[in-house]
Amino acid sequence: MKIDGTAYRSIWPTADGRGAGIIDQTKLPHAFVTLELRSLEDAATAIRDMWVRGAPLIGATAAYGLAIALLDAADDATLDDAYSTLLATRPTAINLRWALDAARERLLPLPEAERRAAAWSFARELCDEDIALNHAIGRHGLEIIRDIAARKPAGEPVNILTHCNAGWLATVDWGTATSPIYQAHDEGIAVHVFVDETRPRNQGAGLTAWELGRHGVPHRLIVDNAGGHLMQRGEVDMVIVGTDRTTARGDVCNKIGTYLKALAAHDNGVPFYVALPSPTIDWTVTDGLRDIPIEERGEDEVTVIHGKLADGSVTKVRITPETTPAANPAFDVTPARLVTGLITERGICAASAEGLAGLFPERAAR
Amino acid sequence: MKIDGTAYRSIWPTADGRGAGIIDQTKLPHAFVTLELRSLEDAATAIRDMWVRGAPLIGATAAYGLAIALLDAADDATLDDAYSTLLATRPTAINLRWALDAARERLLPLPEAERRAAAWSFARELCDEDIALNHAIGRHGLEIIRDIAARKPAGEPVNILTHCNAGWLATVDWGTATSPIYQAHDEGIAVHVFVDETRPRNQGAGLTAWELGRHGVPHRLIVDNAGGHLMQRGEVDMVIVGTDRTTARGDVCNKIGTYLKALAAHDNGVPFYVALPSPTIDWTVTDGLRDIPIEERGEDEVTVIHGKLADGSVTKVRITPETTPAANPAFDVTPARLVTGLITERGICAASAEGLAGLFPERAAR
Repeated sequence: MKIDGTAYRSIWPTADGRGAGIIDQTKLPHAFVTLELRSLEDAATAIRDMWVRGAPLIGATAAYGLAIALLDAADDATLDDAYSTLLATRPTAINLRWALDAARERLLPLPEAERRAAAWSFARELCDEDIALNHAIGRHGLEIIRDIAARKPAGEPVNILTHCNAGWLATVDWGTATSPIYQAHDEGIAVHVFVDETRPRNQGAGLTAWELGRHGVPHRLIVDNAGGHLMQRGEVDMVIVGTDRTTARGDVCNKIGTYLKALAAHDNGVPFYVALPSPTIDWTVTDGLRDIPIEERGEDEVTVIHGKLADGSVTKVRITPETTPAANPAFDVTPARLVTGLITERGICAASAEGLAGLFPERAAR
Repeated sequence: MKIDGTAYRSIWPTADGRGAGIIDQTKLPHAFVTLELRSLEDAATAIRDMWVRGAPLIGATAAYGLAIALLDAADDATLDDAYSTLLATRPTAINLRWALDAARERLLPLPEAERRAAAWSFARELCDEDIALNHAIGRHGLEIIRDIAARKPAGEPVNILTHCNAGWLATVDWGTATSPIYQAHDEGIAVHVFVDETRPRNQGAGLTAWELGRHGVPHRLIVDNAGGHLMQRGEVDMVIVGTDRTTARGDVCNKIGTYLKALAAHDNGVPFYVALPSPTIDWTVTDGLRDIPIEERGEDEVTVIHGKLADGSVTKVRITPETTPAANPAFDVTPARLVTGLITERGICAASAEGLAGLFPERAAR
């Protein structure tokens, strides 16, 4: 997408073909800083310290990291070392393991002399595939927005609420939940996005608001508490969120608070859509509430907030007494019954085993 | 309630009978500072600059402000001037007008020589009445907690979720939503409170967590996004919130985000109670969603957060790009159908016209 008129991806090969450029997302939204990853250690640090985040982008960064690691030597030991180093950066990231496994599977059978070029090709292809996936999600989701726009009085924007950052910064381009929004905006359909700030890590306030603003999409930030009220007042036409993991029957695991928005949408007849690339469907799990373990993260995420001081420096402040303990579940599960539809790269389906089987018969049949 | 073992009210007459002591709530939770109001201007500033907040405490502060203003002269002009000065501090605060009207009605017919003593008596009585009201709410609510405790395995606390600060700091003592909690705790019933941080102004993180902690009630702070997930997992036994205004049929206007918790409670079979002193019932309104206007507050409340730096100083930080606009509705309306019961000073009733009429026949009959 665009940053103040210039097209960007969230990761790109450097001009000399020996590195990868990224946006240091830890500096957002207060500073836009790009970095070049020029060594295995650079790539590992970028993932570990969350200069890059979002499952697809983590996978892409690992693929580039592997390619960079093989620049000067491409023997099995170098490959294995790079694989292990990168995998250890965020051991629970499924896309990370998936990308690394796929890369190793492609490279190991090759003669050493061919591995370097193949590793770079793999990284480029992985990025292009991610973009194609997200673009396809956007084409399908765009039609929902177009339909709503057609039913609204002329000049009134389609009001879309989103939670967290399922934006282009989390992928290579387009994003998942944001892809329909960007495509509608780029086609001239008037949209306006309510951006949930998404406590505790404020990805909405820091990332989604930043990327929508830089691309020029009208939006307003709201606290996570506000969405229900806005839906009661008819100020939200649809909700689109991303997902970390969707079960085979359509239960949706996503950032904490998603479930509350789904309840409010259901209570007010507001369509609630989930945008998902099919690799995030977990075909082995049906009952998300029962079977998806929810990560409990550190208390400081709740009690301490990062932001920018008046002098422009970035710091953290504590919002509660020093002794206050906190609980911090990171995700929740929205039951399929509250989901209007799943927007995948193959089309839109009901959030149900039947719906998913219709789009992915080869997986559902297993 | 207690602050580290010492009993406090949120406002009290000074020992010399010529002033009122308060807690500077703008300094909480990072510093505990008490102040003495010694002039009309002190009292007006305390209300206007929110050194005190919460409808009952604002009314009590105004009553003491009037008494202080009449210390040296109690003629009609002095009384009128004090009335107008105090009323102008927060013109939309219903309790403020109510307390001032009641005080003037009591004082104006009296000879000047008797007004000073009567004004102090009025302030003391108003505080005592507020305490009696909240204590009665607590006695009734306590029975709900006791019943839940009796059904839980021995040693497991009753887990109560609350939103915003309907605590003793907002009243003269006990609070409304917190009164049953404090009384259960003081009687030795094990309770544990999930405290919603309550964005955007963080009254949960700053005030409720502080007062529960100082009194010794076990609690954990959570982001506003977390409550639904906790209810799904059976970790919440009941919800108790306060209210700014309840309609004659039991719709509840309260801090933004209350409605989302009510939806989650309903979806998970968790009892959702609203604690309210009967003066907050608006008998003139039935349909809260249609007829209660919702205040839209400043964007900075969303985009800028106050907190304490590592060096102990308190400052504000921006969490979003400089150019990000925000929407900030301050309250929402929870429809009566989502409310398990209203806890009033006269007992507990269904959130319905019939329920309220049963407890308040003299009002409902009008």
